Formats: sequence, structure tokens, C-alpha cells
Amino acid sequence: MKTVKTIQDVCECIAGWRRDGLSIGFVPTMGYLHEGHQSLINRAAENDRIVLSIFVNPMQFGQNEDLASYPRDLERDSRLCEENGVDLIFYPEPEEMYGADFCSYVDMSVLTEELCGLSRPVHFRGVCTVVLKLFNIVTPDRAYFGEKDAQQLAIIKRMVKDLNINVEVIGCPIVREMDGLAKSSRNTYLNTEERKAALVLYGGIQIGKKLIKDGERDAVALIKEIKGYIEKEPLAKIDYLKAVDAMTMSQVEKLDRRVLVAMAVFIGKTRLIDNFTFDFEDETINYQKGNGPKD
Amino acid sequence: MKTVKTIQDVCECIAGWRRDGLSIGFVPTMGYLHEGHQSLINRAAENDRIVLSIFVNPMQFGQNEDLASYPRDLERDSRLCEENGVDLIFYPEPEEMYGADFCSYVDMSVLTEELCGLSRPVHFRGVCTVVLKLFNIVTPDRAYFGEKDAQQLAIIKRMVKDLNINVEVIGCPIVREMDGLAKSSRNTYLNTEERKAALVLYGGIQIGKKLIKDGERDAVALIKEIKGYIEKEPLAKIDYLKAVDAMTMSQVEKLDRRVLVAMAVFIGKTRLIDNFTFDFEDETINYQKGNGPKD
Repeated sequence: MKTVKTIQDVCECIAGWRRDGLSIGFVPTMGYLHEGHQSLINRAAENDRIVLSIFVNPMQFGQNEDLASYPRDLERDSRLCEENGVDLIFYPEPEEMYGADFCSYVDMSVLTEELCGLSRPVHFRGVCTVVLKLFNIVTPDRAYFGEKDAQQLAIIKRMVKDLNINVEVIGCPIVREMDGLAKSSRNTYLNTEERKAALVLYGGIQIGKKLIKDGERDAVALIKEIKGYIEKEPLAKIDYLKAVDAMTMSQVEKLDRRVLVAMAVFIGKTRLIDNFTFDFEDETINYQKGNGPKD
Repeated sequence: MKTVKTIQDVCECIAGWRRDGLSIGFVPTMGYLHEGHQSLINRAAENDRIVLSIFVNPMQFGQNEDLASYPRDLERDSRLCEENGVDLIFYPEPEEMYGADFCSYVDMSVLTEELCGLSRPVHFRGVCTVVLKLFNIVTPDRAYFGEKDAQQLAIIKRMVKDLNINVEVIGCPIVREMDGLAKSSRNTYLNTEERKAALVLYGGIQIGKKLIKDGERDAVALIKEIKGYIEKEPLAKIDYLKAVDAMTMSQVEKLDRRVLVAMAVFIGKTRLIDNFTFDFEDETINYQKGNGPKD
């Protein structure tokens, strides 16, 4: 495994693999890797070579967000990568990605106007721009993203289609702790009390799934029930909790298509996200699979 | 020479050439080709294969602009391409380029905020977005743009650098009519009287170059002189006339770096652009070369 910090070093490595006719899988991350990332790396083993990037992208953080405190541990990340068969880590400094006169951006309408786009207005410009840059640098055949960031995944897929980017984007199921909390680098911010309180996200998802199984088809009623449950937890403060069209991210009233139920909840100062999707059209609940508890 | 209308047909053709290890030159156009385009095609012959796109891109036209009336003549364009060694014409319909749910855009700050960006606010979003799409479809080694659209050229170069697009962008000198008018598809809009009046653009450039030769280093004085000359023509109405930094497109007061003097002038209802650059740092005026009259 090689770790490089410059775009040129990545390109040289990729060019060699391309000459040998090798396929490339790519896992873009912000580091502080956990089992969620590990599942992406393991899936990426369907390619001849695996590239993983670690870049805490300043452009996708708002002014009052956790850019400075975002957890970092390259040594631990490198070990996890090595053990899971990553061939190349790209670990650039911000200056390598954004020159002083940088002024080009990828913007998206529609899909960015709900959920995280509302509470983090600059977030998806940063995500789209850095992902396009990384795609152009790594030129992967396939790229892997977690379904925990469901809106991000939908946005990346839309960008790839709209801008004719030659990469297959693959979403991978949410990986959970044994008690159901979705794995996240930000879980490290939680103290013992908050860690317990954070279970309301998964609890709310369980309630939502049960209501749908029992026949609920009204989005407003569904959201109201989940909201009531989460609000009972004093440490929890809902940022958003919505049922949206899984393709367009626009809010729905009736549960009559493929719907994403997504939430962002502050537990103390830590903002956590979670979600589940279901497709009413074929009556199948798409349970998020993982190593957590079974429904 | 082949002419195709779908992205898939382009990709199949390109994939075959790539398998054979051939290099690809790309000339993106809006059609109604003239000697300016021809000079780009001829330069593109430094590649093994030449792709030319003809697409009157709706996204780069404002509401009150000439999208509907923009001149088109595929038969004539095909002949010119065939004669000049183009291997593939990509001639898509708008629906092929923009699906109904299209919502991804490339935006740029700084460079788009002056000149054409001021009078055509949506223009460069459209240009950047379609050029990125075309680059991703054609995957050229080199792409060729005219220096007549000096701001566009600077913007494309900046986008390629910022977004790590793997293509070499090559600017080619303005080609002029024998009397000095810059070749443009829009010249076809001009009646006999307007065609004569349109010479004020080149006349203004001649005056600007002479002033600089004679030692003028004050941008305001330079622009004032050129403006006075153009305004004597009753059919001419200046949209903009500015001296800007050739890299950032921001207005300059002193002529002390590489400066672009650019203008857009309405002749009747037809908006024409022209420009020249000079580099005060090495005291060399970069005359726009072409088949027009010599200075």
C-alpha cells in the first residue's frame, strides 16, 4: 500500500495501472475510518485496485460547523486500509486541492434544496465540487458511498448522470453498532450519556418501519409519530425529520412511491443523521442491512 | 467522416480509437462554421483524430437573446468539416444533452463577474456546464477555442485547472475578414450598412494598439480614446469596453501586466465582440494574428 499527498503522484500511479488494463475502485472519505468505510472498501475489492482518499474538505463545512474539531487519525486509518486491501491512500492537504485562485464549483438545484441542504447551505456545493475533482484525479471505474448519507448519494448519482461522468456510483448499506446506532466518525464526539440518547435515531426508524408495516400511508402522520418519540429524549433536538421522494428529495404527503425517511438530530452538540427507504410501489420495505440488530 | 446524434454513439467511436491508442483533438462549436472554426480544426490536426461538436446550447443563452434565430446549416458545416479532415461530428439535440430532470451546473466566480458575465448573467454557467459535459463525453487530449471569446477561453482554462480535468486547452488567434472584422457566425445578421459600421470594433482595436505603442499606460485614458472613436458611429452601441487583467478578468487602472482590452458592441441588434491582449511586463504587444490586414 502506498500513501501519497499530491495529485501528480496519484495520476502517475493510476496511469501505470491503466497501462496494465487494471480496473479501479474508489472510496472517498474524510478519514477516521470505521466499519461503515470498511464495508465500502470490502465491496470495492470487486476491482483490481482500490484507491481511498482521506480529505476533510473545508468547502463542505459551514462557518459554525466542526471542520477544526473533525477527528483525524492517519495512522489508525492506514492500518485499517492496509488490512482491508487498499492499494493507494490519497491524503492531500487543502492547498493541494484548492489553489489560491480557485473559483470553479459544481452546483445543483432541486436535490440540494431539502434536508441537509436546508440546514447546511454550502454543504453540497462542497461535496459535489470535491467529488468531481477526485473523480477526475482518480478516474475510477466504480466509486462507493454509504447509504447513511442518502441525500449525498442521490446527489452524486445525479451529478454523474447530468455531467456525463464515466464512473459507476455504488451505494452501500448503513452499518450499525450492535444496539442500532449508525456508524459515524462523529459518534466519537458523544459522551456516555449522549451515546445512550443517540439511540433515539434508530428507535425512530424502528417506529417508522413498524407503522408502515401496519399500513400507514400518510407521510404527515408517520413523521408526527416518529417526531413524538424522538422529542421525548431531552438530549435530542431534531434538525430535520422528513419523508421525501427518494429520487428528487422533495417532500411527499402520501407514501406512494420510493420514499426516503431521513433525519438529522443534534445529540448535545453533535449532529447525527440516519434514514431508511421503502418503495411503496412494490410494497417492499428496503430495510437498511448491516451488522446491527435485526428487525 | 461520421455524424452522430447520441452520446452513446460518440462514446463507442471514442472507445474504438482509444483501444487503438489514438490521440483525440476536439473543437466544440455552435455550428455555422467559418474560417475561425476552420483554423481550430486545422490546428487540431496535430491529433490522430478530430471530433467537432455542433450544439447551439440553450443554457448559455439569456431570455432575450438570439437562441431561436441563431444561424444553422448542417449541410454546409459538414462539407467544411469533411474538407478539413474532421473524423466525427457530434450533433446532439438539446434533449440528448439535458434530460427533463437535469439540475447540475458548473459555476465560476471572479472570472465571470466582468465583461460578458455582466451583460449575459447566465451565459458562463451554460458554457462551463456544456463544455464539461462535452469533455466528459469526448475525453479529448486537446481542445481548441478561439481567442475572439477571450473571457470564455480564460474561464475554460480556469475550470480545467480547478476541476482537474485531463485535457489541454489551446487558444487559437482571431481570424479576421480582409477589412479587419473578426469572423463570427453572427456577422450573417448584419445588413450592408451594418457590415460597414461593424468595422468600428477593429478600428477601436487599432487605435488602442497605437496608443500603447506610443506609450499610453493609463487604462482609463486608453479606454476613453477607443470609446470616443466607436461612439462616432451612429449604428454602434457599446455594451462594454474594458481593460482587464488577462488572468482574473478584473478591471485594471494601470497597464502594468498582461491586460486584455475587450469589447462587446451592438451594431443595430447584433452584438459583436472583439479584443486584443498585450503584456506590459515584457513590453510585447500580443497582436492577434489572422488573415486580416497587417498593422
